[in-house]
Amino acid sequence: MTVTAMVMPAPGAPLEAREFARPVLAPGSVLLRTLGSEVCGTDVHLWKGQLAGVPYPIIPGHVSVGEISALSDTLTDADRPRDVNGSPLSVGQIVTFLDVHGTCGRCWYCTVGHATTRCPSRKVYGVTFSSDEGLLGGWSPYIYLKPGVHIIPLPPELDWRAFLAGGCGMPTALHAVSLGDIAFGDTVVVQGAGPVGLCAAVLAQLRGAGQVIVIGGPDVRLRAASRFGADAVIDIAGTTPEEREKMVRGMTAGRGADVTIEATGVPSAVPEGMRMTREAGRYVVVGQYTNVGDTTFNPHLDLNQRHLDVRGCWGSDVGHMYRAVQVMARYGRQFPWADLISAEYPLDAAQTALEDVAAQRVVKALIVP
Amino acid sequence: MTVTAMVMPAPGAPLEAREFARPVLAPGSVLLRTLGSEVCGTDVHLWKGQLAGVPYPIIPGHVSVGEISALSDTLTDADRPRDVNGSPLSVGQIVTFLDVHGTCGRCWYCTVGHATTRCPSRKVYGVTFSSDEGLLGGWSPYIYLKPGVHIIPLPPELDWRAFLAGGCGMPTALHAVSLGDIAFGDTVVVQGAGPVGLCAAVLAQLRGAGQVIVIGGPDVRLRAASRFGADAVIDIAGTTPEEREKMVRGMTAGRGADVTIEATGVPSAVPEGMRMTREAGRYVVVGQYTNVGDTTFNPHLDLNQRHLDVRGCWGSDVGHMYRAVQVMARYGRQFPWADLISAEYPLDAAQTALEDVAAQRVVKALIVP
Amino acid sequence: MTVTAMVMPAPGAPLEAREFARPVLAPGSVLLRTLGSEVCGTDVHLWKGQLAGVPYPIIPGHVSVGEISALSDTLTDADRPRDVNGSPLSVGQIVTFLDVHGTCGRCWYCTVGHATTRCPSRKVYGVTFSSDEGLLGGWSPYIYLKPGVHIIPLPPELDWRAFLAGGCGMPTALHAVSLGDIAFGDTVVVQGAGPVGLCAAVLAQLRGAGQVIVIGGPDVRLRAASRFGADAVIDIAGTTPEEREKMVRGMTAGRGADVTIEATGVPSAVPEGMRMTREAGRYVVVGQYTNVGDTTFNPHLDLNQRHLDVRGCWGSDVGHMYRAVQVMARYGRQFPWADLISAEYPLDAAQTALEDVAAQRVVKALIVP
Amino acid sequence: MTVTAMVMPAPGAPLEAREFARPVLAPGSVLLRTLGSEVCGTDVHLWKGQLAGVPYPIIPGHVSVGEISALSDTLTDADRPRDVNGSPLSVGQIVTFLDVHGTCGRCWYCTVGHATTRCPSRKVYGVTFSSDEGLLGGWSPYIYLKPGVHIIPLPPELDWRAFLAGGCGMPTALHAVSLGDIAFGDTVVVQGAGPVGLCAAVLAQLRGAGQVIVIGGPDVRLRAASRFGADAVIDIAGTTPEEREKMVRGMTAGRGADVTIEATGVPSAVPEGMRMTREAGRYVVVGQYTNVGDTTFNPHLDLNQRHLDVRGCWGSDVGHMYRAVQVMARYGRQFPWADLISAEYPLDAAQTALEDVAAQRVVKALIVP
Repeated sequence: MTVTAMVMPAPGAPLEAREFARPVLAPGSVLLRTLGSEVCGTDVHLWKGQLAGVPYPIIPGHVSVGEISALSDTLTDADRPRDVNGSPLSVGQIVTFLDVHGTCGRCWYCTVGHATTRCPSRKVYGVTFSSDEGLLGGWSPYIYLKPGVHIIPLPPELDWRAFLAGGCGMPTALHAVSLGDIAFGDTVVVQGAGPVGLCAAVLAQLRGAGQVIVIGGPDVRLRAASRFGADAVIDIAGTTPEEREKMVRGMTAGRGADVTIEATGVPSAVPEGMRMTREAGRYVVVGQYTNVGDTTFNPHLDLNQRHLDVRGCWGSDVGHMYRAVQVMARYGRQFPWADLISAEYPLDAAQTALEDVAAQRVVKALIVP
Repeated sequence: MTVTAMVMPAPGAPLEAREFARPVLAPGSVLLRTLGSEVCGTDVHLWKGQLAGVPYPIIPGHVSVGEISALSDTLTDADRPRDVNGSPLSVGQIVTFLDVHGTCGRCWYCTVGHATTRCPSRKVYGVTFSSDEGLLGGWSPYIYLKPGVHIIPLPPELDWRAFLAGGCGMPTALHAVSLGDIAFGDTVVVQGAGPVGLCAAVLAQLRGAGQVIVIGGPDVRLRAASRFGADAVIDIAGTTPEEREKMVRGMTAGRGADVTIEATGVPSAVPEGMRMTREAGRYVVVGQYTNVGDTTFNPHLDLNQRHLDVRGCWGSDVGHMYRAVQVMARYGRQFPWADLISAEYPLDAAQTALEDVAAQRVVKALIVP
Repeated sequence: MTVTAMVMPAPGAPLEAREFARPVLAPGSVLLRTLGSEVCGTDVHLWKGQLAGVPYPIIPGHVSVGEISALSDTLTDADRPRDVNGSPLSVGQIVTFLDVHGTCGRCWYCTVGHATTRCPSRKVYGVTFSSDEGLLGGWSPYIYLKPGVHIIPLPPELDWRAFLAGGCGMPTALHAVSLGDIAFGDTVVVQGAGPVGLCAAVLAQLRGAGQVIVIGGPDVRLRAASRFGADAVIDIAGTTPEEREKMVRGMTAGRGADVTIEATGVPSAVPEGMRMTREAGRYVVVGQYTNVGDTTFNPHLDLNQRHLDVRGCWGSDVGHMYRAVQVMARYGRQFPWADLISAEYPLDAAQTALEDVAAQRVVKALIVP
Repeated sequence: MTVTAMVMPAPGAPLEAREFARPVLAPGSVLLRTLGSEVCGTDVHLWKGQLAGVPYPIIPGHVSVGEISALSDTLTDADRPRDVNGSPLSVGQIVTFLDVHGTCGRCWYCTVGHATTRCPSRKVYGVTFSSDEGLLGGWSPYIYLKPGVHIIPLPPELDWRAFLAGGCGMPTALHAVSLGDIAFGDTVVVQGAGPVGLCAAVLAQLRGAGQVIVIGGPDVRLRAASRFGADAVIDIAGTTPEEREKMVRGMTAGRGADVTIEATGVPSAVPEGMRMTREAGRYVVVGQYTNVGDTTFNPHLDLNQRHLDVRGCWGSDVGHMYRAVQVMARYGRQFPWADLISAEYPLDAAQTALEDVAAQRVVKALIVP
């Protein structure tokens, strides 16, 4: 029996359907029948060759949901594959998993630095595994979960489409918003209205923010921000950074945002964000995921005198994904995630999906094999 | 012109209506026409003589809302009474104020310890001001706000009755929940279903808790907890501490609550709360406001091996009240605070209000002069 | 070739010398020639049968130092056993290692809770490994370091005897003092003058405490506390808890300690420590390592009104041990650790060592095979 | 009776001796006979007109020590001027005081933001008080401490010269180092070897840093850094930023500093500091006290991917000054502060002192009236 998955052979090259042998299950591994996998900005970066160290050809798709199709044989009950809570897994369960695999637990960053997202051994499903290594990406009818992959069941009240609508944006935003240390009643500015920005706008409300302002565009995304509870939106089209700062100050008794979350990918957004954050506020920079150049700021005015705390935020760990699942399950009625899905594509339309996302023709796209 | 306010002459003595001269406004002071003032557990404690250092006779009523009736004369615009945001106040504005007055800003606790709720100079409207000092309590048609009282306008979207329904429970719970450091998706147990407990249950949801469990009684309060979003309630009537701990573990993969908030006033609730909190969790004790005796615990099992963080939480400061106002204004549609009000009493029925609260015949009672 | 190690066959039974086969080195493992291993309170608890779940017979000795005698064969340089910094290890290096082995990196506590000291998979060299499993304790001429044991080289400036003089007390105290969040100039009270207490007194100075007060006994230990920089010592013999509280207040402008560290093992020390800590201070309970009963406190006076933060502290992880090594290497000239060693015992005198420690005839005892 | 103080009439103009009436003591005020006052970089900035909003003419001298010469009359003992601990002050005591006066305790930053160093009402002795307002600077034989000035007695073991040798550098560095959240054994890099940098290097050792590296110049300052315990010094003369980063990595297993403290005043030092700090480390920027221009950095590489926490640090409050006094008193034997004083100048040589400091001819200069 074989499995036909979509492969990205090289940057810029069209996706190809390729056949793979059905995986042999090593002890502790799990085979997932894919229900859906997201198409996100990272996939576009991969396709454009903007990420370093990618072992093309790869099977894209890093955040996915599937039904457990098979569990590896185990000698004793104690050896059975388990979820993050320690419960043994069963065939038929609907689960997601942390795309990052192989955090070593032994290096300085894992053990002393307590900065697991900086562990050098980390590999990422759909990104840094070659398709030569197997079904290690979500754009495939089956995904092979290697022993040690962190598996998180979706609670019954959390529809898998809703979960994928948040997708990788949710753990990313959850990490950033947690770093933001929002206090009750704070004004939170979110720079960027893409998936991470929208998730941050929702999560700010789930920290009791008094006011959430989303700055971004285009209009379709700003309308989504409003639907998801943003108190105000500012369109970057037709406004200058100075005007935007002034608008934020106008909504905050002149002080600026208590907490600002950057999710834009544009270097010049960073000094802009510093300037619209109040003195002694916090600024989390989570959107600068690829290197698109330098920017300029004034250390005296923007940082030191402002007594500003600026926090770079990189990667997610199991806790972020686990908590994202719990939050989406609990507050799903309040925030209709699934509405964010603009389109679903069968596996053989993955190329179209990629192009639609690259062109920002859709808010959120899913591959549904 | 005179003002007739309700006075508590001494512990146990019936309330009396007494006449006061209309206050002369010292520079920086404000005269409030009272819209409403809450009747809370502290008032019952005052009446029963359970608090030390109270300078009877007093005008009760510590959390109140009023309309600005008059502002003191000032020589320049810069001297005008201002709100917490620094905006000059105007006659006709609907405001509340922090009941605590006189935090000195000079003592060790204010300046070095950054523990302003432990400043020894603090005096409390409705509690530690004698009626000989003037209209310094809310059970009066007018309240005199001395120079330096921290005044917070209610935003237009926050009805004053809704604000008073939260009353002093909101800043108290907001302080406690903030100390609880809830992470997204955490299970939060609230011990106690009185005003502080209900507010804590709401605020836990506004920190993104994955699950909120309220333990308390009687049934009317537990039903309110459910209406305000509690995922589960446990009635203390008919359950033992061991059974309750087991129920909490049953809802948390055997671990116990990530964060527990105590709001009961019962000493034995404290070791119970320690035991139902997971290892390396946090336990905030905010309900032990009067001394009703000792309790027993096991330092090895309940604290050290459990790696538990237990945080006593005392008092509120301006920030807690200000943030409570912002949160109630922003999330009022989601949480119908005003429903908590069981009864409103005119000023001359204050004695009945006090007795109804003491007998737990009502959830929340207001004095509406 | 065989190895003769000391074995504790059962609680209360005399230690026995037993022969073991020289271990076969699994890939990734290391064989250590023991330089020294400490005799600590845990060993006394083990001998008295006061710890649950111990798989007697065991080879005691949990914190040890050795010279690398052999490294497992590895196919590539990348597979070579490495230290915590990631540097390959070499025969002849002087190293210590974290006694805790097997933290899983997969359970909820490891991944979501970030509370690795509560991982249920942890096993401890010299405590929870049976001697049937091999040379997994320090009272042996050789120690087998299983693959995955966290190995930390001693810097050249840190004599191994000095390191063992701190022994397991150092990472334990380092964890507790870190949890204490000492600010510059704080008054720190340490309850207990045993190894953990003495280490805490030193570490408090290395956090810039303004004043360190050690409460304990007997006199020989209090003299050691003074030699290691304590500004004041209070002998528990001949003083009541109330007197000790009064003495602490007398040294702190009446406020009490900013931070108190409990390292006594006596339940009644816990309420005493709460009472001698100032309002809004922190109290770390690290000494209650075995269950010796309950104690009584007043939740209103001791916790809630005091706005006290009480933190139970359990276990150590790699970071604590690594940091202990760095600190002892850097500040060894200032704090003459090796002076704490009262006696060294050859392997066949381990029984005497155990009895001397149990009787408190020595401050610190080492086994030197 | 009159007092002759040194006055800075305008930027660039030579200092002048002017006569002032001996102040009348308002209730709660204190008159200090000046023992010494420091000459610091701020005084040079004042003289060069580099600070905005300075009400020339002024009496310079913001951190000073004096003997209490007179206390205002008070009606009751309760009204007597008191120190930060609440103890009544007496004539003859040797005290210092926080140069910042008038933190309002009422504005949003004081009450809600808990960012007192950003209170807009703050005025600074020796900087933002005009000499028309009285003896409100230290370059005068007497200093008038207005009611409400925070007064801190020097403990007997802290010589006033030693205290002034630290001067304003100590509270500034103490604030920065506290923000740095140094963990035991961390490598701390200090950029800048001026007074703030040297104090930071000392304070890092009093947080248990495993290694302190000072980067700066000229040689005389680096030698002072070594004398005060720096483990390594790097001369900025003759090294490039890339070389310095490489040197730091060479001392940190390739990772970079755990915590970096910037104390240079040079904008380009900020991106350099970001690059020599390890991933998930902390970087405190405290030296950018005047606006000398912009700098350029890469948000992806320097901040986001690095998961870096960058904290601007502005101003000091009572706690910083109080804690600085306690630390200098406790650890004075270990760190010979007084050695930093290069020269003492009588009041009429203040102009020379200013010029010597401006030319970096001295490390630390005092005015001794």
